[in-house]
Order: sequence, then structure tokens, then C-alpha cells
Amino acid sequence: MLAFRHHGGMNNSSLPSSHTHRVELGARSYDIHIEPGCLDHFGSAMCGLFPGVSRCLVVSNETVAPLYMCRVRQSLTACHWRVDEHILPDGEQYKNTTHWNHIMDTLMQARLSRHEPVIALGGGVVGDMAGFAAACYRRGIPYVQIPTTLLAQVDSSVGGKTAVNHPHGKNMIGAFYQPRMVWIDPCVLQTLKSRELRAGVAEAVKYGLIRDTLLFDALNVGMDAILTLDERAVTDIIFTSCQHKAEVVMADETEQGNRALLNLGHTFGHAIEAMTHYTTYLHGEGVALGTLMAARLSEQLGHAAPGLEDKIRSLYEKVGLPVEIPSFPADTWLDVMGHDKKNADGRIYFILLKGIGDAFIAGNVQTDDIQKLIHSYGW
Amino acid sequence: MLAFRHHGGMNNSSLPSSHTHRVELGARSYDIHIEPGCLDHFGSAMCGLFPGVSRCLVVSNETVAPLYMCRVRQSLTACHWRVDEHILPDGEQYKNTTHWNHIMDTLMQARLSRHEPVIALGGGVVGDMAGFAAACYRRGIPYVQIPTTLLAQVDSSVGGKTAVNHPHGKNMIGAFYQPRMVWIDPCVLQTLKSRELRAGVAEAVKYGLIRDTLLFDALNVGMDAILTLDERAVTDIIFTSCQHKAEVVMADETEQGNRALLNLGHTFGHAIEAMTHYTTYLHGEGVALGTLMAARLSEQLGHAAPGLEDKIRSLYEKVGLPVEIPSFPADTWLDVMGHDKKNADGRIYFILLKGIGDAFIAGNVQTDDIQKLIHSYGW
Repeated sequence: MLAFRHHGGMNNSSLPSSHTHRVELGARSYDIHIEPGCLDHFGSAMCGLFPGVSRCLVVSNETVAPLYMCRVRQSLTACHWRVDEHILPDGEQYKNTTHWNHIMDTLMQARLSRHEPVIALGGGVVGDMAGFAAACYRRGIPYVQIPTTLLAQVDSSVGGKTAVNHPHGKNMIGAFYQPRMVWIDPCVLQTLKSRELRAGVAEAVKYGLIRDTLLFDALNVGMDAILTLDERAVTDIIFTSCQHKAEVVMADETEQGNRALLNLGHTFGHAIEAMTHYTTYLHGEGVALGTLMAARLSEQLGHAAPGLEDKIRSLYEKVGLPVEIPSFPADTWLDVMGHDKKNADGRIYFILLKGIGDAFIAGNVQTDDIQKLIHSYGW
Repeated sequence: MLAFRHHGGMNNSSLPSSHTHRVELGARSYDIHIEPGCLDHFGSAMCGLFPGVSRCLVVSNETVAPLYMCRVRQSLTACHWRVDEHILPDGEQYKNTTHWNHIMDTLMQARLSRHEPVIALGGGVVGDMAGFAAACYRRGIPYVQIPTTLLAQVDSSVGGKTAVNHPHGKNMIGAFYQPRMVWIDPCVLQTLKSRELRAGVAEAVKYGLIRDTLLFDALNVGMDAILTLDERAVTDIIFTSCQHKAEVVMADETEQGNRALLNLGHTFGHAIEAMTHYTTYLHGEGVALGTLMAARLSEQLGHAAPGLEDKIRSLYEKVGLPVEIPSFPADTWLDVMGHDKKNADGRIYFILLKGIGDAFIAGNVQTDDIQKLIHSYGW
């Protein structure tokens, strides 16, 4: 239960400061550890996880490395690890096979063995690329996530989805490949840009919309505490989000069924990101805009009562997320969405809502419905 | 039991003409079907395997496609499949991320869904690349192997090792990703170059050396029948080899232990292939040469009685495989082998022999031992 559900994020008395979720996936099980300040204890956790191993490659980017690489390195070298580094340029536009190949070159140069892990220190792009590199180098070596953005902490670092983008579609080249540990220090969010923090909140809102009405209400009440980085409120929101993510992944690791619910807002959102060439919106912002469209479509098709879109928009405005859908011709929308990975057997699957906390997979959405939705924006 | 073990490959009376092995790997289980002429029944097998699916991408190369693409396509279209094609250039030098990316482009263009399979029609390179493309496109779609070389039929099409080469090491970028079916028509070997047939026999000999003395003896007796493509003899050797491969893979899918025995001759063999830039020897030839070196090293270290290398060389000469180790400085050997994927924790692991049918993993081979071995060739 979230502390700020009861106290608006201002109470600092009750919860323990460290939390661990276990993601149970048989031989691929792992822990998500959430603790303010835990970055400095990373080395000893690694020794416990990889007995007898003492070399790793830390993959980070040019924004995160100057802030946190030194602490991660010190924590590891204090435990007698030898640390190699690979620094990526910062940005979704570099999440492609070219830069993934560069990580492969570094792994080859470092001659990492099959037992020596890759550490992903950064946000979603770093995690996706380092994870996919670990998945493929020598047909798979271990990797560990240290997510440094709220989006990565509440969503992308958990669940083993790794990928790079293809010029014609996001995350089209990748693997389901679980990390061996997720190590989350909420304190690192203090250096995160406000805009990125807000984009990360969008993914937490998503869990509320999909499966947790109380979470949605609590986010409405406690948003100020989160945005001002109240340690307890932020730790709680990460904890609750990871719990949701872990439950969904445990029930459906490779997205044969309900894991697809986590793609709420993503079919429209990916299209928005693609049409704006990944330069205008952060991923979380695209998802927020896409979720507003999914809500309007849910109302239009009679799945949800009128007012759902307004309720969600109102929370997004409180978060400070964009709420204006960008203007593109209907044909452009349809063409770009046709390339999205939710496309199967010629149909586009959408995640729609019956209400707050109640998402479902709709396989019978027609092209006409999408055109009607697009036209409703009256550009 | 091999027919030619008893009859020198000349008897055509006893065995059924179709064989199926089941590779039991839980949710990843699949059948290996071996039957002369089965290429023309491929379409109906696909319908049984993928009910409700009717699109696929066949990946082949410029040598195999003119010979067999038409029959595979006809067999599929007769069962109402829509078939897209991707033709690779022929050769190990194209087994890299560049050409793997081209397959990705074709998959994106064809907009294959998560349920629509890739078919690998060709030898080991085609199987490795198509399999790795299937492993990564949309984080994994199904694939089926139709191996058209003896090497692929007795070894690489079974077991789910997919990969491309890195400039500094063979098969360094890949995935353990099992096919959904292996469909073997021994008749296609009639168009295989004699040299490639002989290279494939080397991988069958390998099973004899690792775990089956009787197979080694039977190969000695029945080699003429195999090299003249006696249908029964060839089907038997494929059947027996696939049985060995399946047993090893079922016991150790991701090479945590004894699957590594299948790498007999591969550490030296990969080095030979790399030092000669993949242009001088076929993979099977490299493995044969590497196996002779492993045998000599086994004798040198006292693991095997003198005469082992001679016995193996004698069979290789009967097959028509190269038996002269190419001349390179010891330092070059060591440097190249250091990059090989059997390298772990700074040590090079070797698969050595105690005798015919008795391989083991040796982790304590010293650099001095390798230098002594190299010098023994007296170049």
C-alpha cells in the first residue's frame, strides 16, 4: 500500500526504507531491490550474485556516466571487480543496430567470458541496448539493470524486454531476456530533468489505468509529493509500480496474452514518436498522448462511459504532461501504425479501457473507427 | 542402429524410409523429420504445425534457391501459403550483422507478424542467419529448418544455436533459439558439391569420436556407400547423427556442461578458419584439422594412448578431408584462440579425447602445452 495514499506523501514514519520484489520466473527469477542510497552498496550485491566472477562491462551514456559512473565503479572496485566501460550517446535516435554493434565491439575487445555480466547504468535506452547486447554476445551473458530515470525504474528495467529500433518501427529488433537483478536507487532522480521525471510518471499512471483504481486516485492526491521528489512518496510509487510490472510479467513473460495490456497508449504513442522522428516527445510523453487517444477511442466505441478521457487528461495536466495530439493526416497515422509490432495477421490490436483500472485487448477495431477518431480532433 | 553397420551400406531391405526424432525441451520441443523426397510434402507439414497461419519468409542463398526454392514454394502455395523470399549471397564471409540486418529489412517490409514463421532453406550459414533473424525480429518469431547440406543435416540445423560472426570471432553474436521443426530430405544432397559432402561427413565422424565407437567403426566400413550417396546409408548416417545431437541438446540446451563436447576440434578449427580468413577451408574441414590437433594434444598430455591421431587421420583420408595443418607462428595461434568463445575466465577450454568415443572437457591446458603442440609440426 502506498504511504501517500493515506498521507499525501508527507508522512515519513511507517515504511521500511528498503524493499525487494522477487520476479519468479523459474530459472530466470531475479530480485528488484529498491532503496534510497543503494548505489553505493552495488558492489557487494554483485559479489553475492556472481560468486567467483570479478569482471564486468558497465554500459551508460554521456549524460548519466559523469553523474554516477564513478560511484558505481568505486563500489565495484572496492569489492575487487575489474570494470570496463562503454559510453553511448544520449538519445532514442541512437537506439539502433549501429550503436548496438559498437557495444558488441567493446565486449569483444574486453573479451568478456560467458559468466561475466553487463551492467546497464541509465534510462530505458541504455537498458534496452545493454540488455540486447548481453542477450546476443556469446549467445547470452548475464546483465543487471541500474535504472536512473523514473520511467526505467517503474517500467522498462523490469521484465526482460530488450530491443533496438528499426528505421521503420520501434523495438522491432530485440529479445525477451531477463536481467539477473534490478538495482534501484530513488535518490538518483534528483539529477533527472523535470521533464523526464514527468514522462516517467506517465508510466506509473498507466498501471493505475490498467489495473489499480486506488493507485490512480492516490496519484491524483499525492502528485505534488512525487514531483517534489519526497523520498518516501517516490520510493512508494516505484515500489507499487514494480509490483504491478512483476505480477504482469510473471503471468505472461513473453506477451502471449495479458502482458500486452502494458502497451496501453503505445500503438498511438509509438506512431506519434515515429511521425515526429523521435525528436519532439519523450517516450512517456508519447505514451500519455497515446493513452488519451485510446481513452477517446474507448468512449467512441462505447466501451467506456463519457468523461474517461477528461479524467485522464486532468491528471496528466497536473503532472505537466503534453495533452495536445499532434496533427497528421489519417493516412499517415494508419500507415505508421501498420508497422507497429502490435500488428498481427493484418489487424491492429488496441489496448482499450472500460474505465479507470480496467483495460482490455480489443482485436476488432476497424480502420473506419481509427479514421473517425483522427477526424474527431478537427485539425 | 545403422543399416550399414552390418551391411556396409549395401542392404536396402530393413529400415522404414521415414524417421522422426523428437527433441524434448518442454515448451520448446520439436520434431526432426528425415525422409527422402519429403521436400515436396513440406507445405502440408507447415499447415499442421501452424494452424491458421498462411504467410512465411523463406531465407535461402543464391546457390540453393535456384535448385530448391521452386519446389518449396510450390509445396507451400499448394497449401495456400503466401511466400516471401530473401536470398543471401553464398558464403561464410556474409555471415555477419550487415547481412542479418538485410533479413530484418525484408521482415519489416513483409510486415510479418509474431506468429508467421521464417524458413531457412540452405546450409549452416543460412540456418544460422535465418534463425538469428527469427530470434530477434519482434523479439522472436517461429522458424523452421530445411537443411540442404550434409553438415547442416547432421549438425547445425538441430539444437537452436543461431549466430553471425564478429570480425574478431566466429559465432560471437547470436542466440540459443530453437526451431519449431527440422525437415530433412537426404535427396537434396545429390546436388551438393563433393567437397561439401566430405566436409559434412567430418561432423558425423565427430559424434563417433565423442560418444559412439560403433559409429566410428561403421563409418570406416561404410564410407564408400555414403560418398556415393547410397540413399539408405546417407539416411542412416543423418538419422544416427541427429539422434546424438538431440540427446546432447536435451541434456544441456544452453551449453552449461556436456554440450561443449560437440565443440571437439572447434577451438583449433575456428582458429584455422580465422587465420585463413574463412576462404581456404570449409567449416567441416577446419573441424577435421582441429580434431587432428586435439587428438595429438590428447596424446601429448597423456590422456590418450599413442596412435589415436593416426587412426582418425586414416578415416579422414578415406573421406577425402584435408589432413595437413596449415603453418602459422605459435603466437598467432594463441592470439586467435584467445578470442574464441570457448575462452572463459582467461583460460582456454579444450575438448580432448581419451580414445575413440570418449571425449572430455579439459580446463587445465597450459599455454606451454599449446606451444609445444604447435612446434611439434616442425614448420
